Amino acid sequence: MSSPQSALPAVLDHIDAQIDESLARLLDFLRLPSISTDPAYKGDCDRAADWLTRELAALGLEARKDVTPGHPMVVAHGPEQSGTHVLFYGHYDVQPVDPLNLWHRDPFDPAVEETPQGRVIRGRGAADDKGQLMTFVEACRAWIAVHGSLPIRVSMFFEGEEESGSPSLVPYMTEQAEALKADLALICDTGMFDPETPAITTMLRGLAKLELVITGPNKDLHSGMFGGAAMNPARVLARILADLHDDDGAITLDGFYDGVPELSNAQRAQWDGLGFDADSFLGGVGLKVPAGEKGRTALEMIWSRPTCEINGMTSGYTGAGFKTVLPSMASAKVSFRLVGTQDPQKVLDAFRAHVDARLPTDCKAEILDASGAPASMMPLDNPAFEAARQALSNEWPRPAAFIGCGGSIPIAGYFQSILGMDSLLIGFGRDDDQIHSPNEKYDLESFHKGIRSWARILAALART
Amino acid sequence: MSSPQSALPAVLDHIDAQIDESLARLLDFLRLPSISTDPAYKGDCDRAADWLTRELAALGLEARKDVTPGHPMVVAHGPEQSGTHVLFYGHYDVQPVDPLNLWHRDPFDPAVEETPQGRVIRGRGAADDKGQLMTFVEACRAWIAVHGSLPIRVSMFFEGEEESGSPSLVPYMTEQAEALKADLALICDTGMFDPETPAITTMLRGLAKLELVITGPNKDLHSGMFGGAAMNPARVLARILADLHDDDGAITLDGFYDGVPELSNAQRAQWDGLGFDADSFLGGVGLKVPAGEKGRTALEMIWSRPTCEINGMTSGYTGAGFKTVLPSMASAKVSFRLVGTQDPQKVLDAFRAHVDARLPTDCKAEILDASGAPASMMPLDNPAFEAARQALSNEWPRPAAFIGCGGSIPIAGYFQSILGMDSLLIGFGRDDDQIHSPNEKYDLESFHKGIRSWARILAALART
Repeated sequence: MSSPQSALPAVLDHIDAQIDESLARLLDFLRLPSISTDPAYKGDCDRAADWLTRELAALGLEARKDVTPGHPMVVAHGPEQSGTHVLFYGHYDVQPVDPLNLWHRDPFDPAVEETPQGRVIRGRGAADDKGQLMTFVEACRAWIAVHGSLPIRVSMFFEGEEESGSPSLVPYMTEQAEALKADLALICDTGMFDPETPAITTMLRGLAKLELVITGPNKDLHSGMFGGAAMNPARVLARILADLHDDDGAITLDGFYDGVPELSNAQRAQWDGLGFDADSFLGGVGLKVPAGEKGRTALEMIWSRPTCEINGMTSGYTGAGFKTVLPSMASAKVSFRLVGTQDPQKVLDAFRAHVDARLPTDCKAEILDASGAPASMMPLDNPAFEAARQALSNEWPRPAAFIGCGGSIPIAGYFQSILGMDSLLIGFGRDDDQIHSPNEKYDLESFHKGIRSWARILAALART
Repeated sequence: MSSPQSALPAVLDHIDAQIDESLARLLDFLRLPSISTDPAYKGDCDRAADWLTRELAALGLEARKDVTPGHPMVVAHGPEQSGTHVLFYGHYDVQPVDPLNLWHRDPFDPAVEETPQGRVIRGRGAADDKGQLMTFVEACRAWIAVHGSLPIRVSMFFEGEEESGSPSLVPYMTEQAEALKADLALICDTGMFDPETPAITTMLRGLAKLELVITGPNKDLHSGMFGGAAMNPARVLARILADLHDDDGAITLDGFYDGVPELSNAQRAQWDGLGFDADSFLGGVGLKVPAGEKGRTALEMIWSRPTCEINGMTSGYTGAGFKTVLPSMASAKVSFRLVGTQDPQKVLDAFRAHVDARLPTDCKAEILDASGAPASMMPLDNPAFEAARQALSNEWPRPAAFIGCGGSIPIAGYFQSILGMDSLLIGFGRDDDQIHSPNEKYDLESFHKGIRSWARILAALART
């Protein structure tokens, strides 16, 4: 092949010509209900890993599926080559689909739908993360189809536990460190700043999460017979959860804000310049008033401030009609988004102390499935970041921006701490993709221009 | 027949001889899953009404099933007769059975089980209320079998909506007032004071109940993308529920304690004399500390003080594993037990005001299925009360007591207000019957001596 830059146009043409075949492969992948949090779908997660392994082997990569105590890992390597060696990461597992009745189609019978905003690929995982990861796979396919090889050395690494806390990830990465090590990680699990402005995410919030179970009476009681005399664990849980925020929206846990940095003036100025429209961001989901700490902008609340959210809560009778039961148990799933150098373990410990301080004699509190990952920030002096920003800017209507991200992508922290690699976080999702919600979609434009974007970035990284 | 008192021994002997047949009929009745709150069981409620109608007609009563907009009413009349005319009330519907996995047998495949405390009839409705109502039906059957007639005029009235708020009851009673009117109502939906001490319940708490639904965002959101900026309705619900009680266990709604009477010294002395063991009452369900208002005894908390309980609560993701969702909705079922002259509508209005005062701009609150019934107190100067107390005292090891009841039996209030009748509330349930809970049971002794008790009371009321 001639120079990567002169080789690029033919690759982009091939991508355009083959987009229907690329789409057909993605729909095939989306039909596999690889829900990692629910043991009932374990076989489907395995089938999704097999599907990926076959696709990568068909590209001529050395691909394998590695079993773990949870769901399998898929690893593939292209041939040795001089220049930058990248490790592309994605996940083949998807979120659960409930409430199923709010979907307008079977989440695992995906299709392209016409919408007033353009054509979209509808189905669970369309955006998070199957559609995104396939943009990279299809970009590689195009380079290989046109030129017989890739412009740089490419390895790929896919897990199936991202939506369930990645229990096997750190042990596997630690054990396979030599096989996974590259010069730079590429992570495709983020979004555009807006439909015209691509983004490279350089600040990522961390996560601490847990399930709290409060038990009181040793069985459900009749609220007439015992009501008033027996401690109601739902009442205890409500108190614990209500006290997590003060009246100004700040989180009350002891030491919670230790390690939370203030934005630099330069950073604040850059973000102010993005023209983020808080009214339309919130208005799009039926809200008006930023709910976080008083005195912070909405962009700060979602990119650079820590949070505490109740993700789920249940107690007693929740079916149709009424049951005058005094429940024996109440539980909640709670998560914290972390920033700066907040320590996930310290946050979990402070939560435990918050619970214990509010626990009456007659109740017990159990904390289940606690886990955490710190926030991470990328060093912008790595020249790969500017090269990628240029490549993205050539594909899209507006120049690419360096942004923050409210979500947690713990893998970026692990690539840093375990493999010593920086991560280039690039994705083509949009704010209205409804990931983790019913009717998830990925715009056909995200998919098509996403493939073209990676084709460009592969060429650009050949020069770094 | 000779005098009712001299006719009684043969009836009691017949009851003892026929107890297996009586039990078989009850088990037959218990096999019908007449869950009134769940529309899926509408046909089974209807079949339970048919079953009762057939049984009463077979006794020679003039029995009929009346349809209503909800579940049917069953009414039966014995022949005209001089002396006291009683109307016996019960309900053929039962509570839902979830959590089903905590039952050790199919709730609708009832059987007699041996336990360390004696033989029990296990199944949904065994105590509440099918087993209890059948004690009266079987007592009547024995009188008729032995003597060809009953010692007083008996009518019976059964509804199928007691566990679902009795929506058809008041309209039906109002329309059928002439047909239902008698001298005294008999209600068998209460319990013994302890396994040796029968009780006549003369104070009943009322009930106000509702479902509260808080909605925020117009769909479930990703807690990373929106967390911090979007108002979480689970957080709002937790605050509303936590604020219902103050630190001393008192209920905070404006005006809530209006109409709550203090116990008279005489009443307090009588209750103190019952030797109620709060430690073993609470200890039996794994608790130690009375959870109600500071400075009140446990007996006051369950018999004569009002309460507020969360009966159920749900929001967001509650399945296996974790889903970092920011829920669009959170809901709770809340009920209040009322005493004295507390006005259910005023309590519901005060709850609405409590919610509105805590509702942020971005959330909406809906209150569904609100309903209420006031508390009631029986006049002890009606001679039927003392006659029944004597009859009960003759059957059981210890003399019968006049007691309070924490549960709500709105029918007693309606008999007073619509039909002008006092109610004699007598039942043979025990505190450990697990009504409204998994593994509901009714002691075989409750059933057998319950039938004998009613046979005695029918004789005793012939003299009043």
